[in-house]
Amino acid sequence: MTSVAALYGPVTEDLTIVEETIDSVANSDYAPLAEMLRHVLQRRGKRLRPAIALLAGGFGTYDVERHVPLAASIELLHTATLVHDDVIDAADTRRGRPTANSSYDNAASVMLGDYMFAHAAELVARTGDIRVIRLFAETLMTMAKGELSQDISAYDTASGNLRDYYERIDGKTASLFATAGAGGAMMAQADETTISALRSFGYSVGMAFQIVDDILDFTSDADTLGKPVGGDLLAGTLTLPAILLMENNPHDNPVRQLFIEENADARIRQLQAVLDAIAEGGILRRSNDVALEWRDSALHALEPLPDTTHRRALEDIAAFITSRSY
Amino acid sequence: MTSVAALYGPVTEDLTIVEETIDSVANSDYAPLAEMLRHVLQRRGKRLRPAIALLAGGFGTYDVERHVPLAASIELLHTATLVHDDVIDAADTRRGRPTANSSYDNAASVMLGDYMFAHAAELVARTGDIRVIRLFAETLMTMAKGELSQDISAYDTASGNLRDYYERIDGKTASLFATAGAGGAMMAQADETTISALRSFGYSVGMAFQIVDDILDFTSDADTLGKPVGGDLLAGTLTLPAILLMENNPHDNPVRQLFIEENADARIRQLQAVLDAIAEGGILRRSNDVALEWRDSALHALEPLPDTTHRRALEDIAAFITSRSY
Repeated sequence: MTSVAALYGPVTEDLTIVEETIDSVANSDYAPLAEMLRHVLQRRGKRLRPAIALLAGGFGTYDVERHVPLAASIELLHTATLVHDDVIDAADTRRGRPTANSSYDNAASVMLGDYMFAHAAELVARTGDIRVIRLFAETLMTMAKGELSQDISAYDTASGNLRDYYERIDGKTASLFATAGAGGAMMAQADETTISALRSFGYSVGMAFQIVDDILDFTSDADTLGKPVGGDLLAGTLTLPAILLMENNPHDNPVRQLFIEENADARIRQLQAVLDAIAEGGILRRSNDVALEWRDSALHALEPLPDTTHRRALEDIAAFITSRSY
Repeated sequence: MTSVAALYGPVTEDLTIVEETIDSVANSDYAPLAEMLRHVLQRRGKRLRPAIALLAGGFGTYDVERHVPLAASIELLHTATLVHDDVIDAADTRRGRPTANSSYDNAASVMLGDYMFAHAAELVARTGDIRVIRLFAETLMTMAKGELSQDISAYDTASGNLRDYYERIDGKTASLFATAGAGGAMMAQADETTISALRSFGYSVGMAFQIVDDILDFTSDADTLGKPVGGDLLAGTLTLPAILLMENNPHDNPVRQLFIEENADARIRQLQAVLDAIAEGGILRRSNDVALEWRDSALHALEPLPDTTHRRALEDIAAFITSRSY
């Protein structure tokens, strides 16, 4: 598989300007804030979302002065949601590093996330594109609603069906990928067919990305994952492998037993039983097949677009996302 | 003193459209979110910020289609910050009603606040005015920084000086009042002198408002306040009366004694000693004089503006804010 950097082909150079823009967010005149910002911004992700935003711009009138702030804004919004998610999940590590809430406190982390949301809004406002600004605000609404729904449905096996699951991962992940694709194209004054194709690509690739992430939560080891294996289930979050397991065992539901178990030792044993059942039942292969279907939807969405280096880079991203799988 | 509604003179009618716009925010298709939104939106404040935004629009080309979303957006942003503040302060009541975090949980309240920020951003984006949208984003940055600084400096008597105090209350309160004034005028295409006058008015009136609020935390009773008397000090927040008390007692600082006291009963006794010292030392009168100075600055800021019903309504607001005092 190609390395991540090589994926981004025609926008590799402009992604370094995106990095600089994100780094500059940490330049606050208030020292404690600057330190917190450096802490959360230096744990670099794969920059998939900003790459998609820049690549989408290649299907119209690409403008580095406007696409770079948009791409940086999308990545910053993503990072801000992680800061708040970690507060909510009381997570200690993220990408193998201590989270903001474990290094500072919850109060400071809530405010840090708010500051980052505001800064992301300021970056997108710099583009001067009202339609993209509105899309950005609507996406944040969708994301907050998705996280809220995940929180409210935690430990509730009634939410263990595919429709609810897709709705949750649309909110928490696919919506922002869709905005990266649609926003990049909109800002390039692409036509509606192109905007719609890139929104659809982003959405499908985002769904695939989250499903793979959810599989990795069961298959990876704690070191690679940077968080405990089976952590989603322990937090009461039902993801695809657990949902498929529940479908396989309608009468003797091991996940429900885990959720209602109050004894700590018995919980650990029951979690192991669930992990074993998922590993043995062909469930991971079926989950991976679902991720591959979403990848295929993503590739299909690109068909109306011309066969350019930008399109091939997007295809590579879709392939890379599902190559991370179990 | 005139009633609050009567204060708003020429914009009273349009403020009812602002109310409707705010109410419509609760129309989410996700029932638990809709319920939470209704819960926090029905605890109505005095609507000072939206009133200032609408009144500021009267010094240029007022447009109800754009000023109303701006005013609603500013009030919604304010309410969203209260939701996050209550999480941070672990507050149980606000305006005499249970807070979101006490009715739901912290996780849901963080997401609720995020959703409200996003909705506020969407409302301001509807105005189509890039300059105002950027001002809005910058204000949210300032506010988050101000709250963070209050959190970080909690229980730190070294932050008990006027300069740090003014910086904190600028961030948490005056900045949004300033944006109400400046944003309303900008959106009305007022000239720079007018925008600057209304920003300055908003800033000064916001400073006066917060100082009076901080005085009331010492003088009011728990029923009127809707929260415990002396609550700021118990949370480690140094406000003007406590700062003046510390200045009066440089060698035997009763506030420092309160902050370092670890025994719960002794803390209650020490809080009472601080409350008594503040009540007896002429400190409340001096604090009130400072609020009146800010009110005078606010009135002074209006001098370049024509003597209209809009200006008189702003003057009434400044008078009302300081009439709440001890």
